[in-house]
Amino acid sequence: MSLGEFDHIERLRRLADHPAALGLLDDAAVLDGLVITHDSIAEGVHFLSSDPPASVGWKLVAVNLSDLAAKGAEPLAALMSLTISGDGEWESAFIDGIGAACESYGLALIGGDTIALPDGAPRVLGLTAIGRAGEKVPRRTGGKPGDRLWIVGTLGDSAAGLAKLQSDEDATGPLVDIYRRPIPLLVPGKALGPHANAMMDISDGLLIDARRMAQASGCAATIDLDAIPLSNAFFAERGGGLSARMFAATGGDDYALLAALPAGFDPALSLSSPPGTRFSCVGTLAADGPSLSVTAGSRQIELPEHLGHEHRGNSRPPVADRP
Amino acid sequence: MSLGEFDHIERLRRLADHPAALGLLDDAAVLDGLVITHDSIAEGVHFLSSDPPASVGWKLVAVNLSDLAAKGAEPLAALMSLTISGDGEWESAFIDGIGAACESYGLALIGGDTIALPDGAPRVLGLTAIGRAGEKVPRRTGGKPGDRLWIVGTLGDSAAGLAKLQSDEDATGPLVDIYRRPIPLLVPGKALGPHANAMMDISDGLLIDARRMAQASGCAATIDLDAIPLSNAFFAERGGGLSARMFAATGGDDYALLAALPAGFDPALSLSSPPGTRFSCVGTLAADGPSLSVTAGSRQIELPEHLGHEHRGNSRPPVADRP
Repeated sequence: MSLGEFDHIERLRRLADHPAALGLLDDAAVLDGLVITHDSIAEGVHFLSSDPPASVGWKLVAVNLSDLAAKGAEPLAALMSLTISGDGEWESAFIDGIGAACESYGLALIGGDTIALPDGAPRVLGLTAIGRAGEKVPRRTGGKPGDRLWIVGTLGDSAAGLAKLQSDEDATGPLVDIYRRPIPLLVPGKALGPHANAMMDISDGLLIDARRMAQASGCAATIDLDAIPLSNAFFAERGGGLSARMFAATGGDDYALLAALPAGFDPALSLSSPPGTRFSCVGTLAADGPSLSVTAGSRQIELPEHLGHEHRGNSRPPVADRP
Repeated sequence: MSLGEFDHIERLRRLADHPAALGLLDDAAVLDGLVITHDSIAEGVHFLSSDPPASVGWKLVAVNLSDLAAKGAEPLAALMSLTISGDGEWESAFIDGIGAACESYGLALIGGDTIALPDGAPRVLGLTAIGRAGEKVPRRTGGKPGDRLWIVGTLGDSAAGLAKLQSDEDATGPLVDIYRRPIPLLVPGKALGPHANAMMDISDGLLIDARRMAQASGCAATIDLDAIPLSNAFFAERGGGLSARMFAATGGDDYALLAALPAGFDPALSLSSPPGTRFSCVGTLAADGPSLSVTAGSRQIELPEHLGHEHRGNSRPPVADRP
């Protein structure tokens, strides 16, 4: 539940005056040394009816683990909220995907519930993930003027994979794979936790999420599109031009990490990370200015109309809404 | 997530080998001194489209608190999973109902998420509730031969209220009120926690839930319909005959507590409880016999086809399925 995701935020804010709520400005709450997060996904919005059910299960676990990664937490346990729509084969395969992801990342399934849905209703699947907090839990609000904005991972792959699937339901390849089976960056997240002034995962798009971090931190963010990390698969598919970079910066579903680190701290040099971990400095936080500015090298770029997902409304579901 | 609620239980069981999972035989998990539960509700299944949204919000909180009550836990915090279907007025009123229940029972809203649903999709709303465990957390599995089965609260009110609403959408009165605004029995639950060999809340119907407790405990339950507690409002509406009592024992949505207590322990005499708290001894657990037998006084009663909700399938949603 993050700032600006919907119009009722003020109503909710009044309810959320417990310190564990972190002012509802974060994707996770912190209680008794545990980091607790809940993410739901809906058929036709967050996944396609044609997506293999095992990958939907994997993705539900992965997006929740990504929230734990962004708090530097270690996975501990999960509660699953399953809806039944009468297709037992789908549900069995979905549970197998949940199980594979839980096994891969050491998450114990400890409970949840199962409910029936009316005939024909789109599936809604939820997971509550619980992690063990590190000594410091970076919040979204802690960014400081002068901090550098770093990304762990690459951007745009998942959105490019989705676009391929939308034009060809049978599309395959690494971009489709990463859309369906995102990898939560738990090890880099834990390593960054003690050093980051602010950290969050990029689920809705770099531009919208960087603006959220800047607003929550009372800072002004500048993002350099030329610096955003693209994978070889993405580059092969779409190139590295400005429109491809804007697509990657607004597509969402990345589950990369965005961290505000003190100037002079280079995570690639300072942290021990798994081989292949990619750190990219893509911008800065400043004391004054608009909450978000975008450049391409030295050129100022006008902000696009859509910075990313808002998870808002349903007349144009986010899946269809993506550029 | 309780035994028998769906066909995938064995698949899930293999995933749930963590001690906190309590073998998925309980409605709540226990982790680091916290009791954690998640319940979702779906429009057209667990609530009516015509139900006032504030009461839907209240009920979502109450059904989760009822799971905490059944573990003798004190309410601490909650994460809400909200779906948006485009009707901002409904959602605002729903959040107000969530807020009222949280305020009434000392539950802090600390997080959650908000997602859009496709146009026309039935709402699915979820809550993860976290409570502080007492020194002993009664499980569903701990019932012992010789235990007496006690109920806290009354049965059938909610199902009778729903039946009234199904024949007249504008029906009012105490039965409709208790269907819409169940009261979680937190204080009696906490008082019973240290004494109960097994405890659960009755959400799906006394007969099905008593059988679940008996099966989980490796015992045989006998329930005496003549002894089940009926409210004055229920009695005025349906009388106290056998068919009314069978309706009350299978209707579900009660959020009464079912506790297996050692013979000789009378909670009405031994515990200090709020005025109006009603304890009724309705049966026994034995070592041998069928998992559930039903009597009316000394007469043996044939088990009805429907013992309660299974939360299973959707061709006949539970709301329509209730007797």
